[in-house]
Amino acid sequence: MSMVNAFSRADFERLDETERALIARREKVLGPAYRLFYEKPLHLVRGEGVFLYDAAGEKYLDAYNNVASLGHCHPRVVEAITRQTAVLNTHTRYLHEGIIDYAETLTATFPEALSQAMFTCTGSEANDLAVRIARHVTGGTGIIATELAYHGLTSAVAEFSPSLGESVTLGPHVRTVPAPDSYRHSPDEMMEKFGRDVAAAIADLKRHGIKPAMLITDTIFSSDGIFAGPKGFLKPAVDAIHAAGGLFVADEVQPGFGRTGEAKWGFERHDVAPDMVTIGKPMGNGYPMAGIVLRPEVIADFGPRARYFNTFGGNPIAAAAGKAVLDTIRIEGLQQNALDVGQYLMDGLRSLSHASIGDVRGSGLFIGVEIVADPAAKSPDAALTTRIVNGLRERRILISASGPNANVLKIRPPLVFSRENADTLVDALGDVLKGL
Amino acid sequence: MSMVNAFSRADFERLDETERALIARREKVLGPAYRLFYEKPLHLVRGEGVFLYDAAGEKYLDAYNNVASLGHCHPRVVEAITRQTAVLNTHTRYLHEGIIDYAETLTATFPEALSQAMFTCTGSEANDLAVRIARHVTGGTGIIATELAYHGLTSAVAEFSPSLGESVTLGPHVRTVPAPDSYRHSPDEMMEKFGRDVAAAIADLKRHGIKPAMLITDTIFSSDGIFAGPKGFLKPAVDAIHAAGGLFVADEVQPGFGRTGEAKWGFERHDVAPDMVTIGKPMGNGYPMAGIVLRPEVIADFGPRARYFNTFGGNPIAAAAGKAVLDTIRIEGLQQNALDVGQYLMDGLRSLSHASIGDVRGSGLFIGVEIVADPAAKSPDAALTTRIVNGLRERRILISASGPNANVLKIRPPLVFSRENADTLVDALGDVLKGL
Repeated sequence: MSMVNAFSRADFERLDETERALIARREKVLGPAYRLFYEKPLHLVRGEGVFLYDAAGEKYLDAYNNVASLGHCHPRVVEAITRQTAVLNTHTRYLHEGIIDYAETLTATFPEALSQAMFTCTGSEANDLAVRIARHVTGGTGIIATELAYHGLTSAVAEFSPSLGESVTLGPHVRTVPAPDSYRHSPDEMMEKFGRDVAAAIADLKRHGIKPAMLITDTIFSSDGIFAGPKGFLKPAVDAIHAAGGLFVADEVQPGFGRTGEAKWGFERHDVAPDMVTIGKPMGNGYPMAGIVLRPEVIADFGPRARYFNTFGGNPIAAAAGKAVLDTIRIEGLQQNALDVGQYLMDGLRSLSHASIGDVRGSGLFIGVEIVADPAAKSPDAALTTRIVNGLRERRILISASGPNANVLKIRPPLVFSRENADTLVDALGDVLKGL
Repeated sequence: MSMVNAFSRADFERLDETERALIARREKVLGPAYRLFYEKPLHLVRGEGVFLYDAAGEKYLDAYNNVASLGHCHPRVVEAITRQTAVLNTHTRYLHEGIIDYAETLTATFPEALSQAMFTCTGSEANDLAVRIARHVTGGTGIIATELAYHGLTSAVAEFSPSLGESVTLGPHVRTVPAPDSYRHSPDEMMEKFGRDVAAAIADLKRHGIKPAMLITDTIFSSDGIFAGPKGFLKPAVDAIHAAGGLFVADEVQPGFGRTGEAKWGFERHDVAPDMVTIGKPMGNGYPMAGIVLRPEVIADFGPRARYFNTFGGNPIAAAAGKAVLDTIRIEGLQQNALDVGQYLMDGLRSLSHASIGDVRGSGLFIGVEIVADPAAKSPDAALTTRIVNGLRERRILISASGPNANVLKIRPPLVFSRENADTLVDALGDVLKGL
């Protein structure tokens, strides 16, 4: 399985001299594990709000990047990072009020039971720590994830991140289940089926002598194809893992921090109670930071025995950046904006009424558009999806694609996206579809 | 095994009201896995050069923190981070010259064979990636590390980081060997013994049907008690792992970036050829960044199959910070300063000629002082070590301790440490020793 929307060496000759030289230098010094987006990669030099600018001065509407969730180079975050970087940068083995303030502000956005926070630098580290804790507290090792999940790339987390491709093998204690598919199943069916699939995975783990430790899901199934509704469909699956003595870990690295519009955290839309919640990407609007928010019971035994220290995790600058992000979401009403503009954008996408658009779904500013060859058969069209993604890129609008069949447009703009930006995107997509 | 130099709840009542309140808030929201340094924790608010300042305005000489290796809040790094944070922060799936420039500058400081770099956010992630690559390229799983090594805290890396304590179990495919001990063995003996121990670990892995994947060592054995010389003592061990088809990974997270004075990278002092080198802590003078530098042959098959993407790793700000760090080391001659002041400091420590000081060893500004009850018997004195560390803290000088018997003073100041700073430290230590 190759990466969706990756630049391929086959396209090398189509690039101009400067880009070819830069790519050659890059391949020489960064080696063969790195990928670039698009048939014609972007050479970026500047970002501001919803726009990115390339070396030639061209301006791109960013409808993809969920890290710079408040918009690129948001002044409040830039100011917070700049100020704290000049004052002090140490670690959590000294007392510092910043990290305590931030942890209190952060946990206050969660249901009361999720009252403690631990800080890492990446979502991978957060999910890796979740595995360590889950295994310690349950005494089990079994992990259930969805078929095309991505949870990170440490050795332990790559083992349950099947979207990394077949060369990265799943762990022997890992079982995968199909993501709930709202396009191909009725709401009742998808909910019931997902619960049944998780129950079957639990039974299969037990049959192999493996005690279940956790079920982990991205609560909007970002890499599985984006499945947002109907709200509540996670419940039977979460009930099943709890009944089996395992934990439920909500991976909010992508849906969290208000992106879904309807809630600050994706799991809240489903009215389920996670034991741990992992967070990351937009947490510092680009500053490297991530973490876990959890129920104190979960860490009560692990904590005293296996101390946790992350050199950079929870440093004073991360705390300042994280605080600025939470403040900005509140002050600028970005969760509400994500809800309003997201609905407006989905309405606009649906109004295109094009035969290739099989489904438009999502919540807030996390939207999937399923591209099909035949709407009646709901047959995925990956080739057409690639043409659309690259067609939009030629029109200077950035999105990507996702899903087991690489046929779901992934639209995930900064939360400051406006109705005007949404119109630009819908018009350009209409234009691309017309030209096919 | 409890953590060396950790604050204990037993000392809680000795603190003043403000600190107790802050610690109570901290424990409530960060949970039980976090630790604080010192019997009386430090509440820091500002850092500048070799000094840290607490909330009461007290000034501390920092002879411990190796992350802010250029000194706290070094203006060149602050400026680089500030500038780039306001311009663009994206990721490695777009072209950006900054990361390519930085990777070229970085790899140019390594021997020619180590020509490719990959970027993570933490040393843990770098060592975790090294494990994935080593296992892929060798087809083995066995790992050899030293008895009190610390390489990080992901699930896979914690398995070969015995310094995390007995609650964190070693992996079944992990073998540990005693660190080479220059205090208790002659140079020839220690070199020969370390090679023999590694060869025995390899044989034991094979006897259990486990193919060796790698030997990993911190090249100055930071948590094992700091063993710097004689130069060259790593060679027989590295030869043994290579002969067994495994890789040698030099963990330079602590000794790297010129700290040892004699070389930019610790492994160069031993004239051995690592297959991969992991780097971190001082890489961005506090900006969260780390990475691997490797031989292209090692990643040639893994790279195309198992793509690598780290959301924050190698972002334009990390590149700018990392470049500023390398520039500063060169412009300010910090490697040479580490060598000169390190030697001066070791001479000063030796001149104390106190019966409790069994050994003074190190390279550049990475120094270990072994504290013993009886110099003839070389018997470790952990209690005295704790009193010295906390005695220096009361005199507003920051160091810590290390080693399997928690009796080695760990002195690891910023590379801008001056002779005057060294005098202050030596005088204060003399004073503490006199008061015992």
